[in-house]
Amino acid sequence: MNRLSLNDDDKRVRQWFVEQVKACGCTVKVDQMGNIFATRSGSNNSLPPIAMGSHLDTQPAGGRYDGIVGVLSALEALRTLQDHRVETYAPIAVVNWTNEEGARFPPAMLASGVWGGAFTLEHGHSRTDASGKTVKSELARIGFLGDTGCSCDANPLSAHFEVHIEQGPALEAEGLRVGVVTGVQSMNWYNVVLRGREQHCGTTPMHMRADTLLCAAKMIQAINAQALSLPGSLASVAVINSTPQSINTLAGRVQFNIDARASSNELLVQLEERLEAACRDIASKDGVQIELWDRIWQCPKTAFDDTAVEMVRQSVRKVEGGKFKEMISGAGHDSVYTARKVPTAMIFIRCKGGISHNPVEFSTQEDIQAGANVLLGAVLRYDEY
Amino acid sequence: MNRLSLNDDDKRVRQWFVEQVKACGCTVKVDQMGNIFATRSGSNNSLPPIAMGSHLDTQPAGGRYDGIVGVLSALEALRTLQDHRVETYAPIAVVNWTNEEGARFPPAMLASGVWGGAFTLEHGHSRTDASGKTVKSELARIGFLGDTGCSCDANPLSAHFEVHIEQGPALEAEGLRVGVVTGVQSMNWYNVVLRGREQHCGTTPMHMRADTLLCAAKMIQAINAQALSLPGSLASVAVINSTPQSINTLAGRVQFNIDARASSNELLVQLEERLEAACRDIASKDGVQIELWDRIWQCPKTAFDDTAVEMVRQSVRKVEGGKFKEMISGAGHDSVYTARKVPTAMIFIRCKGGISHNPVEFSTQEDIQAGANVLLGAVLRYDEY
Ligand SMILES: NC(=O)NCCC(=O)O
Ligand SMILES: NC(=O)NCCC(=O)O
Repeated sequence: MNRLSLNDDDKRVRQWFVEQVKACGCTVKVDQMGNIFATRSGSNNSLPPIAMGSHLDTQPAGGRYDGIVGVLSALEALRTLQDHRVETYAPIAVVNWTNEEGARFPPAMLASGVWGGAFTLEHGHSRTDASGKTVKSELARIGFLGDTGCSCDANPLSAHFEVHIEQGPALEAEGLRVGVVTGVQSMNWYNVVLRGREQHCGTTPMHMRADTLLCAAKMIQAINAQALSLPGSLASVAVINSTPQSINTLAGRVQFNIDARASSNELLVQLEERLEAACRDIASKDGVQIELWDRIWQCPKTAFDDTAVEMVRQSVRKVEGGKFKEMISGAGHDSVYTARKVPTAMIFIRCKGGISHNPVEFSTQEDIQAGANVLLGAVLRYDEY
Repeated sequence: MNRLSLNDDDKRVRQWFVEQVKACGCTVKVDQMGNIFATRSGSNNSLPPIAMGSHLDTQPAGGRYDGIVGVLSALEALRTLQDHRVETYAPIAVVNWTNEEGARFPPAMLASGVWGGAFTLEHGHSRTDASGKTVKSELARIGFLGDTGCSCDANPLSAHFEVHIEQGPALEAEGLRVGVVTGVQSMNWYNVVLRGREQHCGTTPMHMRADTLLCAAKMIQAINAQALSLPGSLASVAVINSTPQSINTLAGRVQFNIDARASSNELLVQLEERLEAACRDIASKDGVQIELWDRIWQCPKTAFDDTAVEMVRQSVRKVEGGKFKEMISGAGHDSVYTARKVPTAMIFIRCKGGISHNPVEFSTQEDIQAGANVLLGAVLRYDEY
């Protein structure tokens, strides 16, 4: 899958999604960030809906499960309610959140973040892709710049439940289908720009260089080494760009991003300090300037709601017996930002080899079915509650 | 300057060049690679012309001297012959060679290489830029796909003289204006593609990764270290591209180029062996595949012609007294490929801080004047001889 947020394929899948939920008798609202809310009436429609949400956008080299399983499971739960003519007390909503991946428009979980008050609407609208296109202009282009206010106040929910593939190896290692997610680790993204000197590769003695790419290479190694030396933390550099892209001219400018995560906010502060100190040390030794060291995203550790998690726990006991694992998510999810406003919980399902953000991403039909059943059970229990 | 070969600015400077040489009474031929030959008659026009050549294309972050000084010095020498109504025995040509930099269409010295028989015309025409455009289609687009055969046989010269900025620090360090270039070091370019695994940066434990960019970072450091440990050699990585350019997805594919040079062909073979062994070792330890290790350009050491060099030496003695340095060029030049067919020599002039391939590139008017005078003196001596 390469369904980057707000591209033509995203437009098509959104149109498909709207058709499907309308066929289930839902009313559809699109908000100012393009989030789509499909609502099925309950017996007390003065209550905000209980939502089941995730995302249909993917990474550029993405799989067919990350996010998509969450929306399709919600859709299946909705259809099951229809098929069995179940009348819930509160209305039930299925939500497709915009730009969860953050691949095209950093940061991740952008539109659930606006809804949850982590970002202003202006911030959400003005994020740009690599070619400079904004979220707002792309929403308008594909016809999904809605007029419903993008906030919990303007468009409230009662709770948010999300099924997602684990994206890591823990469930598979323990031979379990399903995990009960109690929270999400702390994460930061950085944008770093280095400035050295363009020079001729064939004539400039090695000791007279301010070789920006060599300096970046040392930093990438140091960033990895720092995370390895700090148990409970991760640090990765995946995006790099060197200019001027000429084989015989030393790069004079290098841009890269860091993805840093840790099991606690305090540990992430410590990791950040070590990463920055290590990079500044390398830069000063190499005669290269750190022109920009910008924390472009900061997402503190999340703890999900006890009651919502308990509904998931009860549901998974019913579906899977005692076979489940309580766990903390390594990845961010839209539930991180809904959790700031409403009771939220998540269900993980096993994925093959723990591999995600990759076309080989895979979960079995049986595991997906288990996740969807746990989701529906949790939502009905919450509705009961 | 950012006058990449065959772009619209290159078209404009070529048109300007043709006007200038026509105003000096030259006849103009454009060959199949877009090389422009402006010829001023001599008293014996059955002889091939003695050429003064260099290039008007630049690096993407280039200076105003690299190549340009050589063409403008030749033009000034030509005008001086006109102004003084000097009749040479052989005809005299000024040549603007196409795509010397190799920045847009690797490798460097492409069109002098076709003329000198190092590359076939088909190879020259089919080189592509990063967007996939070919040399041939871009030559046609700017109106410089000529019909003169691009070879020494079809369009012969008697000799080739070239003034160029040194692009290194040696002349400045010794307080000299001018260098007599006796040869050019050995150089190779490589294209390397690594394949690891796209994975989620937030969920994939550090030890379960095949992190392609981390692997490339280690290689870049090793490539530099190998050159440092082999006196007389240089190795640089200036171009890198990582995909899929998503902050939270480990790069699964990284492409980079290596520029490797040495004072002898044997030393360059040794350097190549060490670079490849070091990179293969790192890749196998990191679980990353070297999908491509391609030597895309090989340009052995060049020795210029004794007689042509002697003409330069006599000329520089006259212009600068005893104050000059004999030297080997670290950079490649069109003279490398003309030297395969006809007596060739080069004149270097001092440049500030030894910095080239950079907008701050600078040579004084006085140093340029000295170079142009040495050029004219060498050509007239060769004509006499
Ligand atoms: N689930 C997922 O891959 N979300 C992207 C946000 C992150 O980088 O953790
Ligand atoms: N003179 C010059 O910069 N030529 C480019 C070829 C090279 O890389 O040496």
